[in-house]
Amino acid sequence: MYCFNNDYSEGAHPRIMEAIIQASLTQHTGYSLDSHTEHAKELIRKEIKRDDVDIHLIVGGTQTNMITISAALRPHQAVIAPETGHINVHETGSIESTGHKVLTQPTPDGKLTPKLIQKTLDWHTDEHMVQPKMVYLSNTTEIGTQYTLAELENLSAFCKQKGLYLFLDGARLGAALTSSINDLTMADIARLTDVFYIGGTKNGALFGEALVIANPELKPDFRFLIKQKGAMLAKGFLLGIQFEELFQNDLFYQMASHANEMAMILKKTFTECGFPFFSESATNQQFPILPNNLIAALRESYQFQDQQAVDAAHTAVRFVTSWATKEEAVKQFAADFKTLAKKTCTILPTS
Amino acid sequence: MYCFNNDYSEGAHPRIMEAIIQASLTQHTGYSLDSHTEHAKELIRKEIKRDDVDIHLIVGGTQTNMITISAALRPHQAVIAPETGHINVHETGSIESTGHKVLTQPTPDGKLTPKLIQKTLDWHTDEHMVQPKMVYLSNTTEIGTQYTLAELENLSAFCKQKGLYLFLDGARLGAALTSSINDLTMADIARLTDVFYIGGTKNGALFGEALVIANPELKPDFRFLIKQKGAMLAKGFLLGIQFEELFQNDLFYQMASHANEMAMILKKTFTECGFPFFSESATNQQFPILPNNLIAALRESYQFQDQQAVDAAHTAVRFVTSWATKEEAVKQFAADFKTLAKKTCTILPTS
Amino acid sequence: MYCFNNDYSEGAHPRIMEAIIQASLTQHTGYSLDSHTEHAKELIRKEIKRDDVDIHLIVGGTQTNMITISAALRPHQAVIAPETGHINVHETGSIESTGHKVLTQPTPDGKLTPKLIQKTLDWHTDEHMVQPKMVYLSNTTEIGTQYTLAELENLSAFCKQKGLYLFLDGARLGAALTSSINDLTMADIARLTDVFYIGGTKNGALFGEALVIANPELKPDFRFLIKQKGAMLAKGFLLGIQFEELFQNDLFYQMASHANEMAMILKKTFTECGFPFFSESATNQQFPILPNNLIAALRESYQFQDQQAVDAAHTAVRFVTSWATKEEAVKQFAADFKTLAKKTCTILPTS
Amino acid sequence: MYCFNNDYSEGAHPRIMEAIIQASLTQHTGYSLDSHTEHAKELIRKEIKRDDVDIHLIVGGTQTNMITISAALRPHQAVIAPETGHINVHETGSIESTGHKVLTQPTPDGKLTPKLIQKTLDWHTDEHMVQPKMVYLSNTTEIGTQYTLAELENLSAFCKQKGLYLFLDGARLGAALTSSINDLTMADIARLTDVFYIGGTKNGALFGEALVIANPELKPDFRFLIKQKGAMLAKGFLLGIQFEELFQNDLFYQMASHANEMAMILKKTFTECGFPFFSESATNQQFPILPNNLIAALRESYQFQDQQAVDAAHTAVRFVTSWATKEEAVKQFAADFKTLAKKTCTILPTS
Repeated sequence: MYCFNNDYSEGAHPRIMEAIIQASLTQHTGYSLDSHTEHAKELIRKEIKRDDVDIHLIVGGTQTNMITISAALRPHQAVIAPETGHINVHETGSIESTGHKVLTQPTPDGKLTPKLIQKTLDWHTDEHMVQPKMVYLSNTTEIGTQYTLAELENLSAFCKQKGLYLFLDGARLGAALTSSINDLTMADIARLTDVFYIGGTKNGALFGEALVIANPELKPDFRFLIKQKGAMLAKGFLLGIQFEELFQNDLFYQMASHANEMAMILKKTFTECGFPFFSESATNQQFPILPNNLIAALRESYQFQDQQAVDAAHTAVRFVTSWATKEEAVKQFAADFKTLAKKTCTILPTS
Repeated sequence: MYCFNNDYSEGAHPRIMEAIIQASLTQHTGYSLDSHTEHAKELIRKEIKRDDVDIHLIVGGTQTNMITISAALRPHQAVIAPETGHINVHETGSIESTGHKVLTQPTPDGKLTPKLIQKTLDWHTDEHMVQPKMVYLSNTTEIGTQYTLAELENLSAFCKQKGLYLFLDGARLGAALTSSINDLTMADIARLTDVFYIGGTKNGALFGEALVIANPELKPDFRFLIKQKGAMLAKGFLLGIQFEELFQNDLFYQMASHANEMAMILKKTFTECGFPFFSESATNQQFPILPNNLIAALRESYQFQDQQAVDAAHTAVRFVTSWATKEEAVKQFAADFKTLAKKTCTILPTS
Repeated sequence: MYCFNNDYSEGAHPRIMEAIIQASLTQHTGYSLDSHTEHAKELIRKEIKRDDVDIHLIVGGTQTNMITISAALRPHQAVIAPETGHINVHETGSIESTGHKVLTQPTPDGKLTPKLIQKTLDWHTDEHMVQPKMVYLSNTTEIGTQYTLAELENLSAFCKQKGLYLFLDGARLGAALTSSINDLTMADIARLTDVFYIGGTKNGALFGEALVIANPELKPDFRFLIKQKGAMLAKGFLLGIQFEELFQNDLFYQMASHANEMAMILKKTFTECGFPFFSESATNQQFPILPNNLIAALRESYQFQDQQAVDAAHTAVRFVTSWATKEEAVKQFAADFKTLAKKTCTILPTS
Repeated sequence: MYCFNNDYSEGAHPRIMEAIIQASLTQHTGYSLDSHTEHAKELIRKEIKRDDVDIHLIVGGTQTNMITISAALRPHQAVIAPETGHINVHETGSIESTGHKVLTQPTPDGKLTPKLIQKTLDWHTDEHMVQPKMVYLSNTTEIGTQYTLAELENLSAFCKQKGLYLFLDGARLGAALTSSINDLTMADIARLTDVFYIGGTKNGALFGEALVIANPELKPDFRFLIKQKGAMLAKGFLLGIQFEELFQNDLFYQMASHANEMAMILKKTFTECGFPFFSESATNQQFPILPNNLIAALRESYQFQDQQAVDAAHTAVRFVTSWATKEEAVKQFAADFKTLAKKTCTILPTS
């Protein structure tokens, strides 16, 4: 039973594991004040071509979102997100648990635009309503789409003009930056956002997200907030070591590229068989719309998640590849899929 | 420069590292729903001789305290802790960040008693004050002391009678259970508390605390609360694997015993040189009161933390040993200490 | 300049003012433990024909919503509301400030149905999402519509079956219960909800809402929660005196009836001139859709609020009447409106 | 049975009641945007001799404390208060409910000093602990004592130097400013604090506290925070009217003076009978230490509260006078007390 459920089924890339073992019996300063963490930060600063950022290495994405957003907002302020945003749907109300409303807009493709943000601003005009103060994006989005340089420049200019902080959740930033349609660099993102993070958990680390704070207003006392939310790892050097490896010799990009390549084999397979997609993704998450009987047949050998029912006979499902996805497995899947598709598919989805 | 700052300077025991590597390239179910976690829970249930407990593996101690306490209390309820309790002093107000007051009593030895708890209850009589609902203990305490079976039985009976939940923070439970003066078992603790946790981070794991919930009132929906507080590790199997190793072949107890043995060498050294102690500890934290000039001389070769100034010329300091502390290093320290003590100590502390 | 902005522009009905003055120089027990409050509760219990409810008198509606909802929910639980619900839009995120998400559904008429609630339940299936636990309704709704007995019975049965608390915000309950299309009694509401409140502020009291808790699960320690949220009035007897007057000799219903009657004059006026409505309201809030030039002309003599732009040339506006609205003023408005409508209206709204 | 329980047993001064009635049938703008509120603010600005302050009128003291403190602090910051501070003891954890720790120091007289504050600062040195950012004082204190000009100047200079906001809770500011030992003016307080409030509830208003914000850092968006915490009164003009009356023709000071004068009669009575005091108060709260049998005898005719047991036979009790306390009642009490004291007192308290 091969699993396409997600990109965090395996542990870490062997080079990362090796580095952790090498350091395991040495004494390190606690709480991310160690030399590995320092070095990892230097490598990231080099990657984004800026020295004037604060960087914090944090275990997980929900933590990072919760800390960053609650650190930035005063009690009456809110964050704007796409309706499909991870903070809105899949973090069990962690933002609200820190006292803040998540304001949402439906989107066709999981992406916010100045126009959509403006719609939220138009509704929030006085002290009887929360005050929008931050915009939350994911790149790639939760449905595999991604922002272009022009789109991010527009959003950045718009947010600056409106006095909104721009926060980019990069849990799958590697997949975005290595996709065939990408025209962004990590330096662009650091330049165009107030704060963003680089995801390790979903790109070959055991765990870990690197938060990069460019806006000086968001920097003060950040370590207090990490600690308060229970997110200051005692053995913080584990995070440092992992990000050292990720940003030495391009491992971060190599792993993300591999994941995307594997996804493109899946995409080609679905396309060749004539199936449409729930979203247009060039990255490691693919959302084909498949007939329910084909889905059932596939699930005898493969694991993957439902995204959403499309009509009575068809469902959008999610296939995720990762740094660890084996090419043999994907090819085997392609072959199996074609066989099963022929057997089962008689009705194509209507939309 | 050898470091006695804490018990989380190193990574993990080689057996734990080995197990993680073995599992690193296999696919696992995410979010602690994997088979390693299931097996680890079985081992812990066996250790505490009870099947009717819920167990959750969580990355860190502050997280575990925050989730457990906020899950148990309604908004107007408070937790009682010793003034020296970790949640009161060293967690950056994480309990308060979830809306709850920490009510404290000063103690001579870091330990709560029914009498001290009653003092807090006596003050909290109506709806103009918070309502005490939980008692928080640490074993070992933050100053290395520990509870006896009789003491814990008393506290347990008292809390039951008063309708208070009893929560034991076992970040250093290994050290407590393997000290020469201990008469408690893990099964006793599971029987006498409503909820407690078994510390991995400070006892040879990379990270991880195993929360054991015995009281059925505290069990419902606990995974929601873990997720909401950002504490649900995507690769939760990493926790499972570590606790499997800790509770196979007694590794948990062996590592804690070693830490205590190393501390006893330090204790003997301080005692033989005639120095008094800030607290009476049979465990891996030792708090000698030393002359400031001796402290300065020691710091040329060793790292350790200040606990508290005692008078103008003396300070209580903290030495911590761990599963990874090397016997040679401790013996070298003992020799160095005796030499330096002779050179520098002319005035002994007055109290 | 006559004001139709809202139903809380004036102070209180003269009988209420008189009662407060009568009691002003007497000594009363503080914090709502006085005999007036006791008597007011008796009158309310009689009105709803139940003795087994807890009643609390609270200054304002936002407070009452915030306290009631945060008292009922555990940290990971959420409340379901219509998108137009007061707690979602006009309380500056007060529910979120207590840590809870407000889950919303768009509605055609400001009213929830089992089907709409089920849509929210369908999306919230596991611990990565908040857990819906309470349903929030307003009667009348924020756009003047109201629930029938059959609708409320359906909702009540549905919520019981799904384990959801049903909470009815009755800030304008008087208007609902005295409208020409109403078939509910206060006793019905007490029978069909877990908790609801009877609005005084918007129906002729200086301030005050009477919260009625029928579900025993929601009763414990409620006074602690009132105090914690800063809502325990020192001179609580002021609330008691007001609700005594409201529920003696039917003053509560008389005032609401008057407000509705005045609104019906407005409604008739708008209808006769051929204007459509944003919502179908039989109560003291009317939402005609008017041409923008007519609106501008009206605003030279009358105050009222914009609800929402409908197209480039038309806006839905809100007219509110109250216990204190003078019949002469409404008649004068009707006359003025007809004159101005003739002058200005050449294009009727398209939808 | 005459009641000395507190200073909020009665309604409001007849002049205040009269003004409310006068305005009751007029239409006012809602939410404190009315002309009475504007005028009240002008009168207060005149009283404190400053135009550059923001003023907000809020219903109650706990609300005002909660809003002010939570508006000023970031999530990891804490407020320092005397152990006896109202926010620490008698507000059901409302500050903690907004996420912030209250750090306390025991005091001999309910008053903070730079030295006591420094003790708290000394303990809070890094990100593992909360960050003290605000100091909370009450004047008069919860035990009837008060600050001198020199003391407040010292505290103000100290807080400025340490980067701490200074917040003065003036729930009983009238009593402080009119006592025989006072040398402060309201203008001094506005000059020496960052934010303070002037209590109406305990000084002859039906309810209401006037918050005065001098520090520009604390001003932004304050109305959002008032609304979010459920404290924006729909009929806010009720607050405006009351503060207009309080600050026209010195009513505020006259009422406080009367309360103090009545308390001085009580004080003289206790002193003449040889009883010591729990605290040295020149204001409307008196805390004599009385034999328990005398207390029991007094309670057949008078109500007053226990403060604290002093020894097995003696208790410190609290007598409170107000603007409404009748001189005849106090004189009758004095006579009754002397008679009963003679009958019952054979043992005087030892300390």
